[in-house]
Amino acid sequence: MSVTTSPESPAVASSSTASPSTDSLTDLARAVRDAQRRLGTAPGELRGAVLRRLASLLAEREAELLAANRLDLDAARAADLAAPLVGRLELSPAKLATLSEGVEQLAAEADPVGRAVRRTEIDDGLMLRQVQSPLGVLLIIFESRPDAVIQIGSLALRSGNGVILKGGSEATESNRALVECLRDALAAEGLPADAVAGIEGREAVSGLLELDALIDLVIPRGSGELVRSIQASTRIPVLGHADGVCHLYLDADADPEMAIHLAVDGKCGYPSACNAIETLLVHRDFLPHLPAVGRALADRGVELRADAEAAARLPDALPATGEDWGTEYGALTLAIRTVGDVDEAVAHIHRYGSAHTEAIVTGTPESGERFLRRVDAASVFVNASTRFADGYRYGLGAEVGISTSRIHARGPVGVEGLLTTRWLLEGSGQAADDYGPGKKSFKHRRLPVTDPR
Amino acid sequence: MSVTTSPESPAVASSSTASPSTDSLTDLARAVRDAQRRLGTAPGELRGAVLRRLASLLAEREAELLAANRLDLDAARAADLAAPLVGRLELSPAKLATLSEGVEQLAAEADPVGRAVRRTEIDDGLMLRQVQSPLGVLLIIFESRPDAVIQIGSLALRSGNGVILKGGSEATESNRALVECLRDALAAEGLPADAVAGIEGREAVSGLLELDALIDLVIPRGSGELVRSIQASTRIPVLGHADGVCHLYLDADADPEMAIHLAVDGKCGYPSACNAIETLLVHRDFLPHLPAVGRALADRGVELRADAEAAARLPDALPATGEDWGTEYGALTLAIRTVGDVDEAVAHIHRYGSAHTEAIVTGTPESGERFLRRVDAASVFVNASTRFADGYRYGLGAEVGISTSRIHARGPVGVEGLLTTRWLLEGSGQAADDYGPGKKSFKHRRLPVTDPR
Repeated sequence: MSVTTSPESPAVASSSTASPSTDSLTDLARAVRDAQRRLGTAPGELRGAVLRRLASLLAEREAELLAANRLDLDAARAADLAAPLVGRLELSPAKLATLSEGVEQLAAEADPVGRAVRRTEIDDGLMLRQVQSPLGVLLIIFESRPDAVIQIGSLALRSGNGVILKGGSEATESNRALVECLRDALAAEGLPADAVAGIEGREAVSGLLELDALIDLVIPRGSGELVRSIQASTRIPVLGHADGVCHLYLDADADPEMAIHLAVDGKCGYPSACNAIETLLVHRDFLPHLPAVGRALADRGVELRADAEAAARLPDALPATGEDWGTEYGALTLAIRTVGDVDEAVAHIHRYGSAHTEAIVTGTPESGERFLRRVDAASVFVNASTRFADGYRYGLGAEVGISTSRIHARGPVGVEGLLTTRWLLEGSGQAADDYGPGKKSFKHRRLPVTDPR
Repeated sequence: MSVTTSPESPAVASSSTASPSTDSLTDLARAVRDAQRRLGTAPGELRGAVLRRLASLLAEREAELLAANRLDLDAARAADLAAPLVGRLELSPAKLATLSEGVEQLAAEADPVGRAVRRTEIDDGLMLRQVQSPLGVLLIIFESRPDAVIQIGSLALRSGNGVILKGGSEATESNRALVECLRDALAAEGLPADAVAGIEGREAVSGLLELDALIDLVIPRGSGELVRSIQASTRIPVLGHADGVCHLYLDADADPEMAIHLAVDGKCGYPSACNAIETLLVHRDFLPHLPAVGRALADRGVELRADAEAAARLPDALPATGEDWGTEYGALTLAIRTVGDVDEAVAHIHRYGSAHTEAIVTGTPESGERFLRRVDAASVFVNASTRFADGYRYGLGAEVGISTSRIHARGPVGVEGLLTTRWLLEGSGQAADDYGPGKKSFKHRRLPVTDPR
């Protein structure tokens, strides 16, 4: 393990091979929590200044960052890492400029901390406010893309959270250099650098996952396997999703052109994306149009696996087996199943889906409304591609992740998913026992919040 | 175990001594989830009608309910149950009328399901709405008060959630009769009664706590011990708090009368409440006024345990030991500690508090603001009693519980804590790949929600 905190921090382990002790990890997490309390209660302008400083550091240190990245790239090529992985690992002047721009934009946004989401006059001189507050300490675990250090690190700073970052080992040098930018930006504005820490090594992660009293949220960014293994090994809440089994349902009167457009986009745009479709559900009355849909997909190299009724219209399709329903192929493979109506489609989705994103193509507004109302999933669409389920496309700004949990945040999660609330009450000496039958009574007047969400 | 579901449900176990099988519990939870999907997607008026029906049933069945309750009371007296427990167990015509009134009020409230909390025009003809939705299936575990069946059951119905209720064994007959009211109210309006189920026996609870795929939230209402044991034995999110270690800090220039008023209310109003104070922090400059505060508390039978500086002003106080800080007495005992300034008080609170409710008494607005900004707790008060931390006093209507978690809901939780959101997108055939450099671009225009939260 190696940890990146200040020299005076007790959590520093100078060797990257030292095995992590529970004590040093506890000290590390506690140092992040203490620093976070200063960051989170600092004026919002100061967090904005840190972000602007970070944006400039990314420009100023371009040469250093690219040099660090080159070390990782050389090691990756020497280890024969697959080309797409090397591509994701690579930083470039253009990528750094885009990152810096993104941080500038975030710096320009209104600070969310302390914003009132509810105000109530409980009685004369007794005012209650529910205000947004940082969650606390986040543990972010991500795979090869070093960009994530800045993307998630800057969202964490904007929302006043402390953050412990664990990237993939193939990006060690890049991640270290980027974490230093975050820490130096904090220190340059007089805030404690320890609000951001980098860690390395799996044992460090396992140790941190046990610290549910010090870490408030884990955000894994990577494969379903990564997410599942983390969910299985911690009591800390995990924001994310392990599976993306999304369906596109073609209703009886779906426009055939639209059906083709959305099926192709849903399956072929980015087959390994979590919001790509895995199964096409087809209303029996739409079957005459299915051959055209099948051809468009096959032309783009999609392997089709159809039930008997659909297969009768698709000469090249393989027969689907029970295992196809609910499988996340993450590849150019698509299961196809015939259903009798919207309700049957919804029942299939509830049985086999992962409650991520579900879409209907229909010409009947009532069917669309029924689908929207009945499908129990994070995102539910009418006549639009499942691929829209994304924080950027939703206009949330940068995305922390997509959550399929029902608790806390659901669907694409932006900076609001990194916030909780506190209740602030300002009185003039009122005791609870002053109120009751025969005594004072509550007014409970809801007041507008100046800045509605 | 015994379960209360319809006769046709596979989950019915007719004998109350049968040991619960995992299969039958899974069937039970699945039946609740299926029924919940119908309840949660029914029109809001229908949920209102169910609540009105429930309110009338409570009146119509008064005799039956009191007879069932009498069986529990007789058994409790025969078992020599402590008098306060018997008191909590008892239903009366007045209590039933109050419950019925509460349900009527809830029925009159706007239905929260489907209410938009965010609307964005992503592009022409591509409208995104984030709408409130039921969480799903709740498991409520409560101790002796049978009133909780109706109080929490009605909140669950209002928010479209399914609910599995497990009450204390001493209230078995009362709970059964009340659960039947909930189920019959659903059935009378044509909704599936299985959205509400009653279970009995600890083994059933243990089994259900393993069903994290079918149960979305556990709400334990009872002792810290109960909450801790549940938190330790499930992967399902738990809404609640195990500890309520609250502090009242008397600043240098606190008004002595106000200090007495709030200290007495905080400690003596209801000493076993989670929002009662356990430690009084006193600014060194306030010490001359401490004897008056101590006398007011001692007159009400409070045992004081003070540090050396405070004890010098309180001749009858016992010496505080390190173990007093952070102890939840739940009784007429109060620890007292001297501090040098607001920051020292905040540091003590962060070290020993449970992040439940913290209050300052001060004459200096800047100290109050500093306290509000810096204290990291669910509720933070200036010049008001910690006992205000309560859903009813906050004007939230009925209270589900008080959460000290930072995830999902924090502080007193009303019906909003039983809701999540879904993202609904209505388009006209847009694919994600239609957008990008050289193609269409997003508008991302935030629109007002007609019904701001």
